[in-house]
Amino acid sequence: MAKQPKLRIIPLGGLGEIGKNMTVFELGNDAIILDTGIMFPANDMLGIDYIIPDFKYLTDRKDLKIHGILYTHGHEDHVGATQHVVAAFPKVPIWATPLTAGLIKLKLGEAQLDKSTTMNVFQAGDTIRIGPFVVESFHVCHSIPDCVGFGINTPYGLVVHSGDYKFDNSPVDGKKPDYAKLAEFSKRGVLMLMGDSTNADQPGWTPSESVIDNAFDQVFRNAKGRIMVATFASLISRFHQVAVAAERYGRKIAVAGHSMANNIKMARELGILNIRDDMFMDINRINQVHDSKVVILVTGAQGEPSAVLSRLATGRHRQLDVKPGDTIIFSSHTIPGNEESVSRTINRLFQRGADVVYDPIAQVHVSGHARQEEMRLLINLTHPKYFMPVHGELRHLRAHAKLAMQCGISHENIFVVENGYVIEADKNGVRTTERVPGGYVFVDGSGVGDVGPAVIRDREILARDGFLMVVATVDQKSGELIEEPEIISRGFVYLKDATDLMKSVKATINDVFSHSQNGNRRDKLEDSLGRVLYNETRRRPMIFTVINER
Amino acid sequence: MAKQPKLRIIPLGGLGEIGKNMTVFELGNDAIILDTGIMFPANDMLGIDYIIPDFKYLTDRKDLKIHGILYTHGHEDHVGATQHVVAAFPKVPIWATPLTAGLIKLKLGEAQLDKSTTMNVFQAGDTIRIGPFVVESFHVCHSIPDCVGFGINTPYGLVVHSGDYKFDNSPVDGKKPDYAKLAEFSKRGVLMLMGDSTNADQPGWTPSESVIDNAFDQVFRNAKGRIMVATFASLISRFHQVAVAAERYGRKIAVAGHSMANNIKMARELGILNIRDDMFMDINRINQVHDSKVVILVTGAQGEPSAVLSRLATGRHRQLDVKPGDTIIFSSHTIPGNEESVSRTINRLFQRGADVVYDPIAQVHVSGHARQEEMRLLINLTHPKYFMPVHGELRHLRAHAKLAMQCGISHENIFVVENGYVIEADKNGVRTTERVPGGYVFVDGSGVGDVGPAVIRDREILARDGFLMVVATVDQKSGELIEEPEIISRGFVYLKDATDLMKSVKATINDVFSHSQNGNRRDKLEDSLGRVLYNETRRRPMIFTVINER
Repeated sequence: MAKQPKLRIIPLGGLGEIGKNMTVFELGNDAIILDTGIMFPANDMLGIDYIIPDFKYLTDRKDLKIHGILYTHGHEDHVGATQHVVAAFPKVPIWATPLTAGLIKLKLGEAQLDKSTTMNVFQAGDTIRIGPFVVESFHVCHSIPDCVGFGINTPYGLVVHSGDYKFDNSPVDGKKPDYAKLAEFSKRGVLMLMGDSTNADQPGWTPSESVIDNAFDQVFRNAKGRIMVATFASLISRFHQVAVAAERYGRKIAVAGHSMANNIKMARELGILNIRDDMFMDINRINQVHDSKVVILVTGAQGEPSAVLSRLATGRHRQLDVKPGDTIIFSSHTIPGNEESVSRTINRLFQRGADVVYDPIAQVHVSGHARQEEMRLLINLTHPKYFMPVHGELRHLRAHAKLAMQCGISHENIFVVENGYVIEADKNGVRTTERVPGGYVFVDGSGVGDVGPAVIRDREILARDGFLMVVATVDQKSGELIEEPEIISRGFVYLKDATDLMKSVKATINDVFSHSQNGNRRDKLEDSLGRVLYNETRRRPMIFTVINER
Repeated sequence: MAKQPKLRIIPLGGLGEIGKNMTVFELGNDAIILDTGIMFPANDMLGIDYIIPDFKYLTDRKDLKIHGILYTHGHEDHVGATQHVVAAFPKVPIWATPLTAGLIKLKLGEAQLDKSTTMNVFQAGDTIRIGPFVVESFHVCHSIPDCVGFGINTPYGLVVHSGDYKFDNSPVDGKKPDYAKLAEFSKRGVLMLMGDSTNADQPGWTPSESVIDNAFDQVFRNAKGRIMVATFASLISRFHQVAVAAERYGRKIAVAGHSMANNIKMARELGILNIRDDMFMDINRINQVHDSKVVILVTGAQGEPSAVLSRLATGRHRQLDVKPGDTIIFSSHTIPGNEESVSRTINRLFQRGADVVYDPIAQVHVSGHARQEEMRLLINLTHPKYFMPVHGELRHLRAHAKLAMQCGISHENIFVVENGYVIEADKNGVRTTERVPGGYVFVDGSGVGDVGPAVIRDREILARDGFLMVVATVDQKSGELIEEPEIISRGFVYLKDATDLMKSVKATINDVFSHSQNGNRRDKLEDSLGRVLYNETRRRPMIFTVINER
């Protein structure tokens, strides 16, 4: 019998969050990829649009045969980088559940890459064979329908990946967690559990999505004017909850927001979202019905400046306006880093006379991720020998590891690793080994990876203090100024109001050109200007000088 | 009898937060000021150090006699702009409780303004007379000792200002809320209550500061190595709680952080902080005792890059390092907007092997502000005829107003106003009238107000896409390029790696100078370059061109 190749599991990509965006499973030269997501940039990653996993490791491994990309669910942090991965590995097939496949198809269509791959659609509960792996999918509850986790059969035992999950015992779509499959895994023996760590520092049990029904009911019962519900464009089950409340109180649904309308159309076509045709109305016709007869679904619950809600809050929407009597529900979790823009949007909507309902005013959103008690349940249900917390910042992974220890998994069988670490398994057990490149890549405009630390650092300086540029024209022979120097500045001070400062700048320029020889004048001028500007303003703009000799 | 002048109350300054940073009380030409605080800039206020109230209204009102500045407590959002106000109104005396006075003196000393004003120190409970106002102070609990609210006697009745408060029935310093004074106010009749709205959207009752003792006890009991406690430099009562736990478990206190050490020294001298000398040890000597014998107080719980904790997290501190076995407690509320930098700091500390304890892992911090039940209690205790929610964003003010209505105050007697609105009272009642300038002013370096929207907008563009500048030298007669153009760019792309892009840029420049006449070449070049750069990168850097004729 030939020597069995080792199993290698490698979390890639993600910024701060580990084992979330893209994970590679290898058996010798055969590999599969689990999820290919993006991350949203932090506030200090200036100008960055989004962040994708660094999969240089995969492009370098020419010997590796990638048999497929497998998806847990359709959220951006799991599917958002698909077009980049498909572009790098064309022809590698995709496996996804119907809704996830639908969302990926829309995305690949926009990138004109839908012909570059094949899509294999499976149902939660199906077993699929990809390369050397037999993968058993199982349904999990989360904040989007059609989510799955995976049991991956390997020569060394079963590796269970939770996907993004919560144990919701009264899910709004009626589809309960697949406890049976998890129990069955446990009976067969689980080598390793990879568990979602997002809420590992939160005690207790995440409330069911169905608590939102009660909050909606109360708002719908009391609202006299229009209701707008702001949520994620992909939060399909929330649309259903809105429809239930709308029907109960005799309101029709209008949709504002291109992506949301597309997703609703697709989910209805797939039969995932069951809302009758006559429950919808055209957004352009809402003025023809009484305000109490309409509910509008809008995007922009994260305070994104270009989304519908921000445009409403600042009076920049073409079709809609916010008016006294409107009730606006923020039915979404605020992504860390967006707190300020969300607060600002809420305040502006209040300013326009609307009533705004948000958590904690009412429980109009709940997390889609398990808390500590659910994590304990998953560990106890699957009873793994090894445990790897994934999908969280390091602090969440550590908290999850503590829970696993409390559940009886020994310290040395728990792997808290950062992206790029290779977890290796063979018949002797599981261990961490080498580290490969596994960081992240900035996407800015059409540039992928061309904005690195040096450019970001320059943007930081420009963002803080701007720049000042002097263009001096001097006599070629005497080196004396022969024209008034041109001064260009942005982001530093408002030049027209800074007459005293400009006098100092000009005096400095004159001084340098009347006392210095050629050669060192450029450096001398930049040094002197830096000192003068700092003394007078306590700011350090970038300084450039151009000297033209004539 | 002469006609009684009207009472005018004007909230000034603050960004998003209303009636927080500075409030003016006028009676005819006589005025007093309540608090002069700063705000911290939002993440998108690029380069701004802090924000002060716009008190142009006061400098314009030459007829107004300002009799004094009165302080509720020593937090930066209430005292941080003192040096700016004292500089504008020298000789106006200050009234404050001992700790608040101590903190203000340190601040004025640093600004070399301590000789410009006189400091009147009063004790909570004292009645003081400032100009035409008789002001009765009363102790409130908050997250700094020596906090007061005020009952301001006016010809039209008593105006009660809550200050920043919570109803803490087991405060760590033993000083309970002055319920008696509030009840007595109510007996005399309260015209208007101005109440802190910070937590108006939070149901329930804020836990007592004393719950932290239990959390500290547990951490101190289990920690085997060093303990570091990160908190605000002004959170004097927290230092006392640390000292109690330290004494119980045989640890000495070392202090890392200049401002924290200064505040501790001052508070001990004033007798506000009672910790024995022998409980302290020099930070430079901690390596001489066993790790289990020391607790270190550090600044930087907000993730501020230059504070002790961030330097520890990134290995940039001169005297200290973080090592496995250390336990680090984040005992502070995260100021909105700092979430990302706090998370990053926590993750980095975990990365260095420390164990990090933060809310919700353990209740190591509680809010200093009242929640809904306490707000109801204050309204019911004082039983005001009019109500003005202050100190909060508009959403908090609205939520507070709803509570007041539920408590029986009629809608038209509640004033939810933004900064700059004038609330006027006379014998016929209270109403809103005109609006005066009452916004905010950016402080950047030594510049106060010189960075306005235009400069911020330029910083935004530079932060997002940087700039590109072309210096072209052309023949004066033919208009043709006579030298390779100089290209300067920062924050856009890394030029050395962008050889293809630079080829396009040079081709564009050549094209413009070979086909265009003088005159319009600068505009033409900037337009063409903008198009080329956007097509190739999907970015829009600022573009500048300088054309030298030789």
